[in-house]
Amino acid sequence: MQTKKQIDTMYRTHTCGELRLEHQGNETTLAGWVQRKRELGGMTFVDLRDRYGITQLVFDENSSSEDIEMLKALGREFVIQAKGTVRERSSKNKNIPTGEIEIDVKKLKVLSPADVPPFTIEDESDGGDDIRMKYRYLDLRRNPVRENMVLRSKMAHAVRSYLNEKEFIETETPVLIKSTPEGARDFVVPSRMNAGEFYALPQSPQVFKQLLMVAGFDRYYQIVKCFRDEDLRADRQPEFTQIDCEMAFVEQNDVLDTFEGLTKYLFKTVKGVEVEDFPHMPYSEAMANYGSDKPDTRFEMLIKDLNSVTKGKGFKVFDDAEFVGGICAEGCAEYSRKQLDELTNWVKRPQIEAKGLVYVKCNEDGSFKSSVDKFYSAEDLKEWVEVFGAKAGDLLLVLSGEKSHMLNAIGELRLEMGNRLGLRDKNTFKPLWVVDFPLLEWDEESKRFHAMHHPFTSPKSEDIDLIKTKPGEVRANAYDLVINGVEIGGGSVRIFDSELQAKMFDLLGFTKEEAEAQFGFLMSAFKYGAPPHAGIAFGFDRLVSLFAGLDTIRDVIAFPKNNSGRDVMIDSPSPVAEAQLEELNLKLDMKEE
Amino acid sequence: MQTKKQIDTMYRTHTCGELRLEHQGNETTLAGWVQRKRELGGMTFVDLRDRYGITQLVFDENSSSEDIEMLKALGREFVIQAKGTVRERSSKNKNIPTGEIEIDVKKLKVLSPADVPPFTIEDESDGGDDIRMKYRYLDLRRNPVRENMVLRSKMAHAVRSYLNEKEFIETETPVLIKSTPEGARDFVVPSRMNAGEFYALPQSPQVFKQLLMVAGFDRYYQIVKCFRDEDLRADRQPEFTQIDCEMAFVEQNDVLDTFEGLTKYLFKTVKGVEVEDFPHMPYSEAMANYGSDKPDTRFEMLIKDLNSVTKGKGFKVFDDAEFVGGICAEGCAEYSRKQLDELTNWVKRPQIEAKGLVYVKCNEDGSFKSSVDKFYSAEDLKEWVEVFGAKAGDLLLVLSGEKSHMLNAIGELRLEMGNRLGLRDKNTFKPLWVVDFPLLEWDEESKRFHAMHHPFTSPKSEDIDLIKTKPGEVRANAYDLVINGVEIGGGSVRIFDSELQAKMFDLLGFTKEEAEAQFGFLMSAFKYGAPPHAGIAFGFDRLVSLFAGLDTIRDVIAFPKNNSGRDVMIDSPSPVAEAQLEELNLKLDMKEE
Repeated sequence: MQTKKQIDTMYRTHTCGELRLEHQGNETTLAGWVQRKRELGGMTFVDLRDRYGITQLVFDENSSSEDIEMLKALGREFVIQAKGTVRERSSKNKNIPTGEIEIDVKKLKVLSPADVPPFTIEDESDGGDDIRMKYRYLDLRRNPVRENMVLRSKMAHAVRSYLNEKEFIETETPVLIKSTPEGARDFVVPSRMNAGEFYALPQSPQVFKQLLMVAGFDRYYQIVKCFRDEDLRADRQPEFTQIDCEMAFVEQNDVLDTFEGLTKYLFKTVKGVEVEDFPHMPYSEAMANYGSDKPDTRFEMLIKDLNSVTKGKGFKVFDDAEFVGGICAEGCAEYSRKQLDELTNWVKRPQIEAKGLVYVKCNEDGSFKSSVDKFYSAEDLKEWVEVFGAKAGDLLLVLSGEKSHMLNAIGELRLEMGNRLGLRDKNTFKPLWVVDFPLLEWDEESKRFHAMHHPFTSPKSEDIDLIKTKPGEVRANAYDLVINGVEIGGGSVRIFDSELQAKMFDLLGFTKEEAEAQFGFLMSAFKYGAPPHAGIAFGFDRLVSLFAGLDTIRDVIAFPKNNSGRDVMIDSPSPVAEAQLEELNLKLDMKEE
Repeated sequence: MQTKKQIDTMYRTHTCGELRLEHQGNETTLAGWVQRKRELGGMTFVDLRDRYGITQLVFDENSSSEDIEMLKALGREFVIQAKGTVRERSSKNKNIPTGEIEIDVKKLKVLSPADVPPFTIEDESDGGDDIRMKYRYLDLRRNPVRENMVLRSKMAHAVRSYLNEKEFIETETPVLIKSTPEGARDFVVPSRMNAGEFYALPQSPQVFKQLLMVAGFDRYYQIVKCFRDEDLRADRQPEFTQIDCEMAFVEQNDVLDTFEGLTKYLFKTVKGVEVEDFPHMPYSEAMANYGSDKPDTRFEMLIKDLNSVTKGKGFKVFDDAEFVGGICAEGCAEYSRKQLDELTNWVKRPQIEAKGLVYVKCNEDGSFKSSVDKFYSAEDLKEWVEVFGAKAGDLLLVLSGEKSHMLNAIGELRLEMGNRLGLRDKNTFKPLWVVDFPLLEWDEESKRFHAMHHPFTSPKSEDIDLIKTKPGEVRANAYDLVINGVEIGGGSVRIFDSELQAKMFDLLGFTKEEAEAQFGFLMSAFKYGAPPHAGIAFGFDRLVSLFAGLDTIRDVIAFPKNNSGRDVMIDSPSPVAEAQLEELNLKLDMKEE
């Protein structure tokens, strides 16, 4: 009865999720929302709902005429208070914990009437996305939506408990910081007191957490809002939440061990799931086998390189291709013409952009049927099959073209086949560390290298000599936590030597002056004794959405914004008064369309 | 040895705060900062510091020549790693937990050299405020500063543990919200995707937490950053942190009980202090007795009204004054002419603005000596003395003038005398609830009423009829938590009826259109069944600073801003590129000076 003791207030003696058969005969006062009202043979039943559950109220011929009158007006979502006696139900409802009892109501009070809600407040609502977002406060009344928020709260607390136990200090870093042109676009905040100057909202507390290491804080974390002014895709929000961490006097494996521990702890305490030790997979292996740096390892279906067995047989498409490769879809040899055409169209979509799809069916009788029988004999195809270790009943799906494009395309096809074959179960969790990321990535547009992770990431010491000769091949002490094909977190061992850091800025095309203007305080901090340090950040929204079995982060955010960055409920952003702009020394300068 | 297990990494086997006599003979690797280096009879001692403590390293004639060479270069704040053996010290240091042992170093490694820091990294630094702020990452290395941050982290976790236990859901509300011209000035954030429109940063999540109650969340909390673009005084920051809470189906006392419980829990778990039940003091009583709505109740010295005993004796100053009142300073009858002049000057300062100070000394022989002996006989003065219940040796200090001004002035004088008499001990904690605040306060400038708390605060039901006749006398269901003269938190029972809310907006001078534009979504939410609800917010920075025994909140913020809202470490705010403004459809419009 601990819950009772905690929730008891002057408005109610119990919650709507609390009463059981053992309370029979007790006087009780409940308060909540009218979920539904039914009349049946002179009796009226009201399902009363609050956050904790639903309890049935009963009114009959013994109810006061005042209450009967009030009952008539009672509609869905009215807020009421009911005093009465707990009694056993004659027809029990086994589906809810309070289903064995009902309240024989002695006194009804309407606390707030309610207009008819614009959509039904039920687990499965009849409301579309837009209307539910506009009335988000009603959408949040629905059990599945509220449960996502409760899950989020629970996970945040579990994260904190684990990290506090490990001596991490939760430290708040500032929200009004400094704009840096690197990376994604910053939101900026005009300063009234410093005319013509702007704060920026942080894309992450990166620099501050590194400074905390220089400050000797040793172990830092924060669950923190971050901001990115990007054109929004379905699963992006202009403000999002990170579990942000940094440790000093550590190497890569110290960080991986600590945060593998955190992840296991969350699975255990929040979902009651024990997950196995996380494999460490080099980036190169992830790309070769899965065509992705965030492989979904819930199923195999690895990508195989077919160059050696497909070239030189007169099939020009393959002969001209940089890369021929594919996957083996187990048990799909029976795919119909229509299904194969469907897959072919699927890979030709602009998102995948493959030229076509070659298939080989491994028939039950040991023969093969392929779309390239003209060029490849059964002997030839047998070689392909051996590369996959395919067996009778399997289907090979093969693409060709530019290598990195094709790895990506086959990787996508692999996920699609995984979906079709039901291999991506939301209740199976396969975490892994992807490690040894490249330090740099070439940007065709600006014709220079960008930091793949960020400019503070350290190169692997064994690759350091490559920096001058083959910068593209230098691997970084950088790592991602991937679960079920979703990148949950990422981090790196940082550079803590101001000379190496200066060299990195140079490599990334910063002039000395630019580096100084943007990161001068960090470089200068490194001159006063910086410890070796490394860190990681988890996308908290994404982690919660994975735990909730959802596909988007929007459903785990209480008040999300839409794809234009608008909060349609409060109607924001909105124009501000001329006078306010004037105080900020600003003028609107609208472009003509 | 739990700590050891947790902190052990590849760079160190122990922390600098961990080794004891029982580790004698153990091999160990430590890493940290050089606190100091001393040479003594062919031996070199290095105090190695990390977050956990200080351990003494010893190098002697047996040390390798390489290490000896390295030692020479070693300066303060170098980051080093040392491998060696734990041994008993010959001269023990009882002041530190590791003072019985030292490390006989076998191998030294410099991880990072350090320039000479711009101020000493000691508990008492030689650095001034400005330089310490510029190099905040070095300032944070100092024990007292870091300890404030550790305290903050500990308190945040304790707050969360308590509230989670009570079924509160921690819910993140958005940071990019909507600008409202009411109240303090908002920081605004131009939206690139919605040209000409702006988000605002929240001054508090007020509206969102009320919407969460409408959504049935029942118990919400959040430790959350809030923002106010105000001209900064010493103890204000443009961004600050609140413990923000809201409860549904509650009355005022439910909230007070819950948060009194939280406060006691914090005192108990964080400071090991048991505090008594918090008195509830009506606002009117606080103003009458303490001249303040945040009374420091660590000491009595109550303000007394002397109107009835001072008027009509021919002293024009008092006769003409709306209010004559004062305090009794125990045991101060011996105050010298100089001390009394000093006090007189003190009350005449522009911050207090009293015209003068009248005193009465209660001499040990039963006689009185006052500055108004010309007008008042010993008999008259005896009447004054009786009002205070003063005894021989006490000193009465009396001011006169406009009532509310004088209450305030005497209240300030009371605090000053409390300081002088050492009655305001930082280790004594006297929390209380100030209740029954006025609903409205008259604003002379705009000639209208403002909401004293905020426009969502409900009036006391027994005062509701006064709204039309004497709005200034209506009391609100509003409350503040005050500890030692500091307002730690405040809240109110909210209006949950859209009609009453509309009436309030009207009373506050909003047109229907303004109210609709600014709070339309809240009013509309109230139409779909709003539960009775109430809430509170604690100033987290202030609470931590109270617990830390500090006078300003700046010292409990990792990276604070100065009084011009600047972060001098990162040099922010700063100008942004023309191109960025253009993307935001903005132009600078600097005023000529």
